[in-house]
Amino acid sequence: MKLLQERIIKDGTVLPGNILKVDSFLNHQIDVKLLIEIGNEFKKRFTEKRITKVLTVESSGIAVATVTAINFKVPVVFAKKGHSHNQDEKLYESEAYSFTKKQPYVMKVSKKYITSMDTVLIVDDFLANGEALKALIDICHQAKCKIAGVGIVIEKSFQPGREKIEKFGLKIESLARISKMKNGKVFFIV
Amino acid sequence: MKLLQERIIKDGTVLPGNILKVDSFLNHQIDVKLLIEIGNEFKKRFTEKRITKVLTVESSGIAVATVTAINFKVPVVFAKKGHSHNQDEKLYESEAYSFTKKQPYVMKVSKKYITSMDTVLIVDDFLANGEALKALIDICHQAKCKIAGVGIVIEKSFQPGREKIEKFGLKIESLARISKMKNGKVFFIV
Repeated sequence: MKLLQERIIKDGTVLPGNILKVDSFLNHQIDVKLLIEIGNEFKKRFTEKRITKVLTVESSGIAVATVTAINFKVPVVFAKKGHSHNQDEKLYESEAYSFTKKQPYVMKVSKKYITSMDTVLIVDDFLANGEALKALIDICHQAKCKIAGVGIVIEKSFQPGREKIEKFGLKIESLARISKMKNGKVFFIV
Repeated sequence: MKLLQERIIKDGTVLPGNILKVDSFLNHQIDVKLLIEIGNEFKKRFTEKRITKVLTVESSGIAVATVTAINFKVPVVFAKKGHSHNQDEKLYESEAYSFTKKQPYVMKVSKKYITSMDTVLIVDDFLANGEALKALIDICHQAKCKIAGVGIVIEKSFQPGREKIEKFGLKIESLARISKMKNGKVFFIV
């Protein structure tokens, strides 16, 4: 998605440790014009699927999931982060590791909102190590729902996330795929 | 807002301790059709103001703020919750108390995204004790921006939040105002 690549080059900041800050337009302040284009692009890329729910995880996935769900005219469900409820029978739970916070956390979704009848599109703002996505996929597997695919705004293709997700046989659509970041510059897979 | 009141009666659940669960349509699963109507209603109620930013706090305010900001064609900014950075000069910080989690937390907004040039509409999903809103208002005061007003989806009018916020001389628009909850039923101020 050219508009997104241009915006990353213009307003993204590369920090030490391969960190890309996009908080001026995606995950602290959000440019709603760009956000709408992102939602439209996901609609195009998954249009053949009969999606019934868009699933993401709080917090920075919510805005992206919302505009996408508006396009598909289906509900958004966002997983909540927190501590385990020790096998609360009303919740799907899955553990993920946060490389940013250097600790594991539990992702939770009420069993009421994802069922075996659903076809779920999973979306998130970033794909890097794939930990959050793996947990969302695990929750879908617990729910025995269909997964239409995975929509990612920014993929760091030099990190192992995509490979992990592809092992599940899922379609991944990333709107910007970063091949490397060097000397403060971002390079894309085109 | 009649549609919202009807939905609260139909799908809200009253739990002990004056808790209203609306996670089937507002803050875990989100009904995007209702969400769009909420965004349209805020546009109507604050239409005379020259709003430049919509401000909320993660996580459950984000979807509401996003559809509202789309209507105003302005960016969303969402405050992040976390620990204090000890007066990080790049951040506005304000402390709020979580009655749900029974502990204080710090709300943070980058100084880059709210400035004295802005006219900010603050929105959130709930107004109960007013702690989160007080912190968002404090952040606006630190930024010396104008505050266009406060837009709330569900107000528990029997709790002290509105009174606290009115002391700041701000316009508050709540789309559903709950006067009491009794025997599992919700009663509205009409």
